[in-house]
Amino acid sequence: MFKRVLVANRGEIAVRVIRALRALSVSSVAVYSKEDQDALHSRLADERVCIGEGSARNSYLNMDTILTVAKNMGCDAIHPGYGFLSENAGFAKKCEENGIVFIGPTAEVIDSMGNKSQARAKMREAGVPVVPGSLSVLYDVKEALGEAKKMGFPVMIKASSGGGGKGMRECFGEEDFEKDFLTAQRESANAFSDDAMYLEKLILEPRHVEVQIMGDNFGNVVALGERDCSIQRNHQKLVEESPSPIVSQETRKKMMEAAVKAAKSVQYTGAGTIEFIMDKSGEFYFMEMNTRIQVEHGVTELLTNTDLVMEQIRVAAGEPLSLKQEEIPFLGHSIECRINAEIPEKNFMPSPGKITALHLPGGNGVRVDTALYTGYNIPMEYDSMIAKVLVLGRNRDEAIRKMKVALEEMLVLGVETNLDFQYKIMQSEAFREGKVDTGFVERFMLSGK
Amino acid sequence: MFKRVLVANRGEIAVRVIRALRALSVSSVAVYSKEDQDALHSRLADERVCIGEGSARNSYLNMDTILTVAKNMGCDAIHPGYGFLSENAGFAKKCEENGIVFIGPTAEVIDSMGNKSQARAKMREAGVPVVPGSLSVLYDVKEALGEAKKMGFPVMIKASSGGGGKGMRECFGEEDFEKDFLTAQRESANAFSDDAMYLEKLILEPRHVEVQIMGDNFGNVVALGERDCSIQRNHQKLVEESPSPIVSQETRKKMMEAAVKAAKSVQYTGAGTIEFIMDKSGEFYFMEMNTRIQVEHGVTELLTNTDLVMEQIRVAAGEPLSLKQEEIPFLGHSIECRINAEIPEKNFMPSPGKITALHLPGGNGVRVDTALYTGYNIPMEYDSMIAKVLVLGRNRDEAIRKMKVALEEMLVLGVETNLDFQYKIMQSEAFREGKVDTGFVERFMLSGK
Repeated sequence: MFKRVLVANRGEIAVRVIRALRALSVSSVAVYSKEDQDALHSRLADERVCIGEGSARNSYLNMDTILTVAKNMGCDAIHPGYGFLSENAGFAKKCEENGIVFIGPTAEVIDSMGNKSQARAKMREAGVPVVPGSLSVLYDVKEALGEAKKMGFPVMIKASSGGGGKGMRECFGEEDFEKDFLTAQRESANAFSDDAMYLEKLILEPRHVEVQIMGDNFGNVVALGERDCSIQRNHQKLVEESPSPIVSQETRKKMMEAAVKAAKSVQYTGAGTIEFIMDKSGEFYFMEMNTRIQVEHGVTELLTNTDLVMEQIRVAAGEPLSLKQEEIPFLGHSIECRINAEIPEKNFMPSPGKITALHLPGGNGVRVDTALYTGYNIPMEYDSMIAKVLVLGRNRDEAIRKMKVALEEMLVLGVETNLDFQYKIMQSEAFREGKVDTGFVERFMLSGK
Repeated sequence: MFKRVLVANRGEIAVRVIRALRALSVSSVAVYSKEDQDALHSRLADERVCIGEGSARNSYLNMDTILTVAKNMGCDAIHPGYGFLSENAGFAKKCEENGIVFIGPTAEVIDSMGNKSQARAKMREAGVPVVPGSLSVLYDVKEALGEAKKMGFPVMIKASSGGGGKGMRECFGEEDFEKDFLTAQRESANAFSDDAMYLEKLILEPRHVEVQIMGDNFGNVVALGERDCSIQRNHQKLVEESPSPIVSQETRKKMMEAAVKAAKSVQYTGAGTIEFIMDKSGEFYFMEMNTRIQVEHGVTELLTNTDLVMEQIRVAAGEPLSLKQEEIPFLGHSIECRINAEIPEKNFMPSPGKITALHLPGGNGVRVDTALYTGYNIPMEYDSMIAKVLVLGRNRDEAIRKMKVALEEMLVLGVETNLDFQYKIMQSEAFREGKVDTGFVERFMLSGK
């Protein structure tokens, strides 16, 4: 096992990782920006080092500074959390070169999955269902239009290096194609310094269903069920649950097999997620693979009584998986609501500021992952997510009721939050009946249904 | 299902019950004393009514006031929690007479189990192993001495109506018997208005192991494993865990069978606990039955993924058990540490006062049941227990490490607590090796081992 691990992140995921390290008797080093000097993660860790000031670019994204700290502090590994450097193949490579274990898959795997069109090609080869679309990357709008006409509208235009909804456009007809393609390509060039694009058949009213997998260095891969993350705003997930209310036992089995196949085809190690898109008929297609722990990993942990972060760390330290596929329990139904400091009615505008009063829900089957405390000042520089409220119930109805009890009880004063908005989602007929697709939030904002 | 339930308790258990009621969509009525007007339980409930001032006698023990409130507020049931009126057969009877469901077993069952010597006799009849001792109650010291000599010293002198360590004396030889018996009898007369006593063979270095059971009105009873509660101070439990580190799979099976037999012999309904005493050779004997939910019920909930309070309520409302013996999972190892506002070094003297800062641990496999909040004033009138920290790990070592992480993280300023003391117990060699009996705390206080 590692002696000392640097946690290259902030907020609730840094707290989550530090707790896991402590439970494994591994010493932890937090890095923090000047804005985060009072942040919980920097207070909980055994050691802490300031790595800069202001935006992530000058702190949590500064690879060289973080590596220098890791070396100076005698760390033998780095846990990247999610976001920031977690899917940066260059950073993983630098870690390797410096003799520090990057807790995640290899730089090669991150790289191959980070390139979306390459990942699609790999998955197609491995026999995993992929959304029908262009077989190679496209740079030229004319050539792309030809492809689009071949597969038929509507199509989705996507940046090969894309992520988080950037460089992405839905196109419903030939007449809009040139404008849509060029806009998306420009966005991609700006955001990712890459103007390689590809096309996919646009799936209408899709659901986002993903499978959590975990692999080790001995070729073992297990799948820990699926998560339905169809409730999103601006391509950011808001609510996640497991199991998905619309996935049949038969489809679940197929999805898990496809996910294991996908992971094995790239010798995947550590925690990863295969994201699928599901159409109205229940057919699912590979969308992308996230090569890191995800925000919503706790949904799976509650449902399967596992600790994915501890497992990540053990696997990275060279231990074989402690999970056996046939022994993974599925304990009922789990839901997560992401609590953001934001104003839903003002297009989810962030609402940073000082927490003047805080009461977190608790009790049986309720878990809150957060870095909040009374008096904490949420900085404006980073993400607006301030807590994840998770519940486990015996079935979906009980889980929804437990979530409503938890949301009712939670009190955050000093900033605006989406607590009420989440409560309304839990109460909405569409959610209660499990009939939501990724367009739900937009419609719900407009019509309240 | 009930429409509205009165919660006749305070503190964390009242909060626990209110949350369960809300998750069942049942309206809740809190009762509170003037001292508790800012208490969390009275703030969380849908309605609240003040029932008096000062000590429990004038508030939470006032049966007539509580029944009047229940009737006036239109409650169809009362949940008594633990302590206070929870094992008061007279109160259960009054509820029945007033057409209000007492959430617990019948008055007759509470009465027969409340009388310790009668309970022993019933269990002996039912074929449950009972500590060798007197077959009937004893009032006369001479007669009692004769019995003691017959069974051989050391003996335990116990009040028939006893509980919580009152009216109880260990006696190691004939020369001390008269003094010990009369002192215990006087204590019993004062505390319980009953001078009926009985004798048991004193088991040296005993362990306290209990089995959680749950029964319904259709004759079904399930056992949810055992809890080891050997770590006690002044007969009050401090640490509970499940499974017990010294109970073999074979003994567990026997204990669970004995507990189910015991419960079925009295047509037990609702949540109950059969407390056993275990000697050094691993033999176990019935000690008493608690006819209510216990403080440490969460240990079993975490381990078996159940909600015992919701189940209690459902069963009291006439539903059959939702649990099937063969489907109850045992998910690893669970531990609870009771956090008290007290000074361990001063014989656990209570330390009431205002909470000036509070940070609760959280995350995967960590549960905190508490009614604390920042600014809350712990009144001196009631119990000193302010929180229960519970963890679930894959095995005992992991659970102990997780508990240490949770205790390290927990911060309670404004009052003295036993947090450090609990941490030291977790670190002690005796606890880590599972080699503790009910005399552990006393020895640990003296020697630090």
